[in-house]
This record gives sequence, structure tokens and C-alpha cells, in this order.
Amino acid sequence: MATPGISLARLKEHIETLSTFGRNADGHGITRSCWSPAHEEARAWLLGRMKTAGLETRVDAAGNTFGVLPGEGAAVLTGSHIDTVPEGGPLDGALGVLAGLECLQIIKEAGLSVRRPLAVVAWSDEEGRYGSLFGSRAFTGRLDLAQVPSLRALDGEPLVDAMARAGYDASRVAEARCDPRTLHAYIELHIEQGPHLDQARIPIGLVEGIVGIRRNRLTFAGTTPMARRKDAFLGACEYALKAREHIVRKGSGRSVTNFGRIELAPGVSNIVPARAVLMQEMRELDARILARLDRECVALARTVARRRGLRVVVETQSRTDPARCAPRVMDAVQAACDALRLRYRRMPSGAGHDAQNLAAITASGMLFIPSHGGRSHRPDEMSDWKAIGRGANALLQTLLRLAG
Amino acid sequence: MATPGISLARLKEHIETLSTFGRNADGHGITRSCWSPAHEEARAWLLGRMKTAGLETRVDAAGNTFGVLPGEGAAVLTGSHIDTVPEGGPLDGALGVLAGLECLQIIKEAGLSVRRPLAVVAWSDEEGRYGSLFGSRAFTGRLDLAQVPSLRALDGEPLVDAMARAGYDASRVAEARCDPRTLHAYIELHIEQGPHLDQARIPIGLVEGIVGIRRNRLTFAGTTPMARRKDAFLGACEYALKAREHIVRKGSGRSVTNFGRIELAPGVSNIVPARAVLMQEMRELDARILARLDRECVALARTVARRRGLRVVVETQSRTDPARCAPRVMDAVQAACDALRLRYRRMPSGAGHDAQNLAAITASGMLFIPSHGGRSHRPDEMSDWKAIGRGANALLQTLLRLAG
Repeated sequence: MATPGISLARLKEHIETLSTFGRNADGHGITRSCWSPAHEEARAWLLGRMKTAGLETRVDAAGNTFGVLPGEGAAVLTGSHIDTVPEGGPLDGALGVLAGLECLQIIKEAGLSVRRPLAVVAWSDEEGRYGSLFGSRAFTGRLDLAQVPSLRALDGEPLVDAMARAGYDASRVAEARCDPRTLHAYIELHIEQGPHLDQARIPIGLVEGIVGIRRNRLTFAGTTPMARRKDAFLGACEYALKAREHIVRKGSGRSVTNFGRIELAPGVSNIVPARAVLMQEMRELDARILARLDRECVALARTVARRRGLRVVVETQSRTDPARCAPRVMDAVQAACDALRLRYRRMPSGAGHDAQNLAAITASGMLFIPSHGGRSHRPDEMSDWKAIGRGANALLQTLLRLAG
Repeated sequence: MATPGISLARLKEHIETLSTFGRNADGHGITRSCWSPAHEEARAWLLGRMKTAGLETRVDAAGNTFGVLPGEGAAVLTGSHIDTVPEGGPLDGALGVLAGLECLQIIKEAGLSVRRPLAVVAWSDEEGRYGSLFGSRAFTGRLDLAQVPSLRALDGEPLVDAMARAGYDASRVAEARCDPRTLHAYIELHIEQGPHLDQARIPIGLVEGIVGIRRNRLTFAGTTPMARRKDAFLGACEYALKAREHIVRKGSGRSVTNFGRIELAPGVSNIVPARAVLMQEMRELDARILARLDRECVALARTVARRRGLRVVVETQSRTDPARCAPRVMDAVQAACDALRLRYRRMPSGAGHDAQNLAAITASGMLFIPSHGGRSHRPDEMSDWKAIGRGANALLQTLLRLAG
């Protein structure tokens, strides 16, 4: 490789510094929700780092924070987010933003040849204090603007107030929407949030797409008085076992489902459950397969309920569509890995990312690095510094190819 | 029939008056926990009614309240309890006490010929503010006296304080233990707490025994980190379905089981459950069958867990042994029904009753009357007044036969 690599020392220092904003007093993880004082201090620090790197800075009306290296034509964008879940770790989001900053800083400092504008972005409220992927939805025109005035956090605080406290006017969020013609590509570096790379000791995940997620709420209920009541819990049990088997056997081979919550009513040891409320998630990369599995599971729930003398109501709690990564971006990641002699594995992303919104308006992709034990969204979320360095260099080579 | 019957008008007035003690302000049921002011007022009223009926009264050290018609030899005892569950109804317990009182009052007033002493009793704390069947356990020597000083209600109040407030000395509870030689038989009238008599329109249930209850807590848990975690919920589902089927197929034909509660951890939609805590109840009239089913369910849980790569821990939460009713008492009930030309059905009691403690020291039995829709332990628990009259007369005829 003729081109210089990133400065791992500087990237490490940036990651460690960012992790101090919102660090919980008991040392147990980082809580840096979007619009919170900790988040706004982190944003101010990030803008300072961008300026130090020689980037032009801008914060849009949705709170998306940009650092730009000017150039010709449509821009290549990279980034992630700097908000965290409550008691989160130091890498989720932060890695993609700070590695992107490092890449642009090296490109600027080393005078590397790039034609297109390059920008690093920290998307606003990725973790969803007010609905996940808030900033990238606003940027890509996928935010339901009519809902903005009434959005509230779980703790009840209106978005309008949270933004106002941070110095933003929620009524102007629409202005964050970008002109897709100004974009050439988007690439995001992230920890895997799963164990596959870590277990296989493969440094780079070449993301083929981001799974779509259906979240359904199934309520099985008995229709008769207690004494002759059909057991709603056993109905839910039979459904869960059969739906899991169906999705494993009749899905894409990578389709997954999970039942993470169930509530029984009345919830007393000696009373037959009149009602069982089961939460089901389904994840799949192919939109048509996901839609089919969803339909088939609803039909299966009805069959199980009917045979057991129960009623069932299936409510969609949320649904996101799968997003395919662009071949052009995947090719650039692959070429970057080849140039750096880094092994990679093609894989889907099982978690949602801002890249799925960007995929709707530009060629988008992601690359993953291993996270220890697949851990994320928790205080001990970590990766090796060497692995972080490899990921950042792969991002740099990808950006050079996309922007060249 | 040559002998007079009970006064349904007086019994109705007594049931209606007792139901005013502890009636909730919103009219929603009756809350008359043992030792509460409402309960102590009800006890004082009951003692007054006993005296009016010409009975000798006595309250023992455990709070069991007796009204006695003297006689020769060992006594025949009848009764139930006057405490209720929170938001309970007017018949559970009250019926057995007040019908017993009515029987003794008629026997006294009409000068009916009985040789043995007859007593009506209201057992203390049947519903178990401090452990179910408290009073009859103390009376029959089945109370763990060492635990008395540390017993606390769910709301935290120590038994010692609750008893002291009502004028009782908990350190003297042991004195409530009776001499079994003073007892000839025990017979209790109760609503069925199930739908069978009501649905079949049969006036009397001749109870063959009271089921034993095993309450187990099964904790299924994954043994690996999250990403490769086996699903503890699906393990619990498979176990619940199979255990239910096993108990239906391999039990006595009347064995039942219920899973009324389950809790998943961490209990989040998108995380595979690491732990599922399942509550199981088993009920069966035959002690050997119950013990076998219990063993077989534990083995089944281990098999399911092993095959799924899970651990399982089974903890006994509570266990009561089945109690067979005495043939001598069942014969007396049957003869009473025949004399009154009342149809009856032999049946087990699926719920626990003080009679199961009395069965350990004397010939014991129960008779049931229908409860509307099988409802009990709720404000709309009711029966027909005619059905109540039939039950009280059957109790009267039974007592005359047992005490004659």
C-alpha cells in the first residue's frame, strides 16, 4: 500500500474522550441520549474535532452533524451516530463517526487524491429516544413530519421541548431533508453486534443488507368463563414452537424469530390463563420472504387458536423493510479488503442502522468489525484496538475508492 | 320427613348481615381478612348470634370460634370460616358457618333428639393471610409453631401484631390444639367453587376427598452467552405442552395441572430469553398418583431441558397432601340426601378446605352446593337461596345422623 493509514493513536484517543460524555456516575456504562446535556456536550466536542481536522462543519435542522471536505460532484458520505442506549458502551455509533473523522483527517493531512466531496456525519437520535433512526429518516425524507409535534420520549418529555432545550426548533425538522442528487454513496463502519466475526476471527464483515424486522403482538384469549376456559398460555406455547420451526424451515435459511416477552392474565398460579400476550420479532433480508413468513405466521396463529377453542388477535407493533447494500459500495469494500489483505465475510446486518434509510436515496453499504462476544448496547461492549484500526483503514480505502 | 327443616329466612338474613362486615366502600365485594377490624366485628356479631341460638361459645388461642350444644361423648363438629379473600363474595366460608349455626339453632329450638355434643366452628384465617388454613392447622396440630413468631402478611404486617391488635397472644397459639378423642366427626358445607353441579343442575356434591396440590417453580435457563443462547422460553413452552398432556393421559383421569404464571428474562422483544420461570400447579385426589406425576414432570422437564441445551431447576413452592373423606361421613351425607330426595354427585374438591386438616384427626367430610357459573372468591359469587336451603337441610340431616 502506497497510501498512509489512519492514526490509531488519535482514533483511540477520540473514542476514549467521546466515551467520557454521559459516562454514568457509578462507572456503569454510558448514557448519552440524543438532545440530553451529555449529548450536546459531545456534539460540541465533535464539532471542535472536525474543525481541528480541517473540515467544514454544519448541523442540520434535525440535529445531524456534518464535517465536510469539499470536492467536485456528488458527495461520498460516511458516519454513524454519537447517541447511546441507556448504559451503553463506547463503540456503538461512536466508532463509525470517529473512524470517519479520522479517515477524512488523514486524507486532508496527507493530501490524498480524492475528487468528490467527502463528509462525515453523526446522525441524530439513532437509538430512538423519539423513534429509531430519527436523523437519517429526516435526512432521507422518511420521517412522518405530521407526528413530530406530538412525539414523546418514554419518560414523557415532548421532542419539541427536548430539541428546544438543546437549541433546536422542531418545527424546522423538514429542512433537514437532502437532495439525493448531491449524494454519490454512503458507507458506515460499525461493530457487528453479533458473535460471528469474533468467533470466526474474521476482521471485516462485508454487509450485504440490513434485515427487515416485523414485530407482532399476538393476544391469545379464551372465549368461555373460567371454569371451562381453554388455556391461552398453552395456545401461545404451541404457536411459539411451531412458528419458530416454520421460520427456520421455510425461511431463507437465515430468517430468525424471537419471542422475548409474554404476559399472562390474570397471572395467578391457580387460575387458567384467560389471555396470553406474546411478542414476536421476525428478521429477514429478503422483503418478499419476510412478508410471506409474516402472513404464514398469522395464519398459523389462527389455526392453533381455532383448534384450541381460542381467539387470537395479531397486531403489528413495528415493521422495517430490509435494505440491500449497493453492489458498487460492496465492490469498493471488497477491493479495500483485498488491498489491505484483510479477510472478510459477506453477512447481513441483523440490527437496524441509519444505512437502511440512506439506501433509499443513494448507493449504501456497511462494513463490520468484530465485537467481543457479540456484545453491544451494554457497558462491556468492546473490540480489539487492532481490529478497530483494521476497520478504520478498510473504511479509508473504501472511501478513497468511492470518492476517487 | 318428620323432623322440621332449617329456617331459610333466618339463614338468609344471617348471610346478608355477615356480608356487610368488610363490604368494600365501592360496593365491589367483601374484604374481611382474618384479624382485621372488619373480621373482628364479624366475629363479635357471630358470637352474639351463637348466644341467641342458645349455644355455649368459646374462642380458642388461634382465634377459632365455637358455638356448642352440649351432649354425651365425642363431639360432632361442623363449620367453615368467616374470613374472605380480598374482594371476595358472601358465601365462601360464611355459608358453612351460618348453615351450621342454623342447624344447631333448629336442633335446640325444636328439641331434636341428639346424643353427642354438636359444635359449629368458624376456623381462623382459612384464606391464608398468614398461610392458608391457619386455624384448623393449629387445632389439628399441623401448624409449625416455630414459624409463628416470624409469620408476616404480604403487606409486611407480622402475625404477632395483627393478633395483638385483635386481642390475641400469638405465643399461646399452641393451646388451640385439640384432643382428637373429643371428636367424633367433622362435616363442612361449602359452595362448589367449580361449575359441575351448576351445569348438571345437581343440588348436592358428596365430596370424596380434597385434592392434594403441588406447586412447583421451574426455571429454565440458557447456559451460553446471548448470541448462541438456547431459548429458555421455547424450552418452557415444550415442557408445558408435554407436562399437560402427560398429566391428562397418565394421571387418574381427574388429575389436573395449570401454568398460571411465566416470567422471561431479560424480557425484551429482541433478546433471546436467557431464563424462563414457570409456575406449575398439579391437583390430584390420590396421594400416590400425585407424587408419581410430580416425579414424572420433574424428569420430563430435565429431558426437555437437556435436549434443548438448557438447565432446569425445579423448586417446590408448596405441597398439600390429598385428604380422603371418611366413609362413615359420606354414608351419613348420602343417607341425608336420600331422606330429603335430593340428587347428589360424588366428586373431589379441587380447592383446599379446613376439612383436609380435620381429616387427619377425625372422620371428616364435606358437602357442596352449586355456585353460579362455578364462581367463587369474587364479588359475584352466589348460589340460589333454594339451593342454599337444600344444602343447609342436607347438613342438618347429616348432623342428626352423625350425632344421633
